[in-house]
Amino acid sequence: MTAPRFTSLIDSLPSTVPFVGPETLERRRGRPFAARLGANESGFGPAPSVIAAMQAAAGDVWKYGDPENHELKQALAVHLGISANHVSVGPGVDCLLGLIVRQYVNPGDAVVNSLGGYPTFNYHVSGFGGRLVTVPYRDDKGDFRSDLDALLDAVKRENAPLVYLANPDNPMGTWQEADEIQSFIDALPETTLFILDEAYGETAPASAIPPLDIRPNVLRMRTFSKAYGLAGMRCGYAIGAPEQIAAFDKIRDHFGVSRITQAAALAALADQAYLRQVVAEIAAARQRIGAIAASNGLRAIPSATNFVAIDCRRDGAFAQRVLAELIERDIFVRKPAAPVLDRCIRVSVGPRSELDLFGERLPLALAAADKSA
Amino acid sequence: MTAPRFTSLIDSLPSTVPFVGPETLERRRGRPFAARLGANESGFGPAPSVIAAMQAAAGDVWKYGDPENHELKQALAVHLGISANHVSVGPGVDCLLGLIVRQYVNPGDAVVNSLGGYPTFNYHVSGFGGRLVTVPYRDDKGDFRSDLDALLDAVKRENAPLVYLANPDNPMGTWQEADEIQSFIDALPETTLFILDEAYGETAPASAIPPLDIRPNVLRMRTFSKAYGLAGMRCGYAIGAPEQIAAFDKIRDHFGVSRITQAAALAALADQAYLRQVVAEIAAARQRIGAIAASNGLRAIPSATNFVAIDCRRDGAFAQRVLAELIERDIFVRKPAAPVLDRCIRVSVGPRSELDLFGERLPLALAAADKSA
Repeated sequence: MTAPRFTSLIDSLPSTVPFVGPETLERRRGRPFAARLGANESGFGPAPSVIAAMQAAAGDVWKYGDPENHELKQALAVHLGISANHVSVGPGVDCLLGLIVRQYVNPGDAVVNSLGGYPTFNYHVSGFGGRLVTVPYRDDKGDFRSDLDALLDAVKRENAPLVYLANPDNPMGTWQEADEIQSFIDALPETTLFILDEAYGETAPASAIPPLDIRPNVLRMRTFSKAYGLAGMRCGYAIGAPEQIAAFDKIRDHFGVSRITQAAALAALADQAYLRQVVAEIAAARQRIGAIAASNGLRAIPSATNFVAIDCRRDGAFAQRVLAELIERDIFVRKPAAPVLDRCIRVSVGPRSELDLFGERLPLALAAADKSA
Repeated sequence: MTAPRFTSLIDSLPSTVPFVGPETLERRRGRPFAARLGANESGFGPAPSVIAAMQAAAGDVWKYGDPENHELKQALAVHLGISANHVSVGPGVDCLLGLIVRQYVNPGDAVVNSLGGYPTFNYHVSGFGGRLVTVPYRDDKGDFRSDLDALLDAVKRENAPLVYLANPDNPMGTWQEADEIQSFIDALPETTLFILDEAYGETAPASAIPPLDIRPNVLRMRTFSKAYGLAGMRCGYAIGAPEQIAAFDKIRDHFGVSRITQAAALAALADQAYLRQVVAEIAAARQRIGAIAASNGLRAIPSATNFVAIDCRRDGAFAQRVLAELIERDIFVRKPAAPVLDRCIRVSVGPRSELDLFGERLPLALAAADKSA
């Protein structure tokens, strides 16, 4: 029997998954993890006020959510000191990244990212037929930062309509100062759209976040998934110029942000006291992960995010073994796969009990990885 | 200042909204509706067991949902008597429809739908550059059913890779019998993918739902938004052949179904007793809406859905005035816009108190619409 034909682009795509979920690993292993420290979630959870708001909204979910996300956009606008037509809300930054690629990238167009930069963005670039052009991270001082000069060179050389940077960085946790970002923006061609992914903006030093200077060629991405502890609710937003923001309305799923998610995000935004408390806990957890690394002779990369990359100081194969031995010991962590970065593992923050387990089992995993070399 | 260039397709698209939300109308009017009977939601709400499951899951939403929707797919497979590789779960049927268009439609390809058929599907067709080809509903006996023969003719004439049909029908509520659907499938070219949207399958007579005979050129869409009362949670699924199902994994947002939505859908599926009870309440509400129509000299179109189309027996302009007068009287309903269908208004089921209000205010709205002619 013949079958319907996929487009040639769809035909050419692999059935990849940008990130294998911990649940998948648990099913494969046949037992649950003891510590969930791999997905850059916030193990400190959402605010009690947010949980209460969700519980109160649960009976109301027979109604579609407001397709304009009106209340949430208004609240974000007030929170950010901008107007609501500078904000588009979507079901997670991942989804918004897909919409952006679809808006600006024709098949064959170059799209620039760091080598090892956010895989889900790359997934969307491939998904719409873009041509990914990558630039290695700098590691001259072992600081593993995106190379802004090289990104800019690539944009100009390739006449790229789109360039992506996460600041603070994922997967490395490092950050650029605001004036470095601003210089990068100033030097960009006006026809190149810059996606500045600030998913980890709330956990970064203020000096890393440029002022919200709205320009047609910059879209800044924020999320409730990280510091706000709502990864499982799917809510992110883009900040940009009115014309770029309005374009989302041409192709987005208007009812895509669930009603209870709207309620959760509104409540989260209203509880800045909890956010401050969690940001402090995240900073303390980063310190703790750094101390664990140091006590095992490893080097923690300075981080402005809710995770810490740990340089295992040998090659990628060794770091891969460390990862496998941690997973074997019921500790869920991940690691970057790209060259240079791949000698690191990446550990998300979490409550004390989970970091205790990590501290207990890391030396065992290191010894086992060493032995199996 | 120049700006980044949208693709020419994006440039060509209007900033439409397939459906204006009731919240938008409330903001425009400056006051809330007294009865929410326009969006084909289930005013009977989700099961108490589902609300409890959501409340229990609220504290857990700092974790991303399982990107494979494993448990939910397994439960659906058991429920449907098929295997899990016949099911893809997504954040609402709307989103899945977009993915399907993206998978099968090249710019300029014909896509066939009924004239007045589901607008959000058409929105996605335009959004990916497809060429919408429409076929009028039949109304020879005033039954407003999709014209299967004409749809088939259009598919063959246009060599269309994709054809859409909602059974039971939206916006008219009518249905085709399973053998008519099966004959349509048998007659379709094997290279044409048929989207059989069964969003209202749970409220339809069993005779309208063909057996789950898996074929490469049929994708059947189901949802938790209608009878299960979870419109605001975003969960739908596609049933089809393994190759077609696997293709979703090439382009979907893997983390798109929220964690609490997974919990809600699992609980909803487990509570079939509640579903049966609600389906009975929906049937009774349809009867009630029919009686209200009749007592006002109007004709209710027989419905297998959670709404009833009411033929206002004059032209589209009159029905539009009836709609406006109902909205003016705080009753949220909608109406189809396409020729022929447009002499109808469409009223969703709801609890007794809301239908009482509708019954009270419909004669006033009719009189006012008549007067303003």
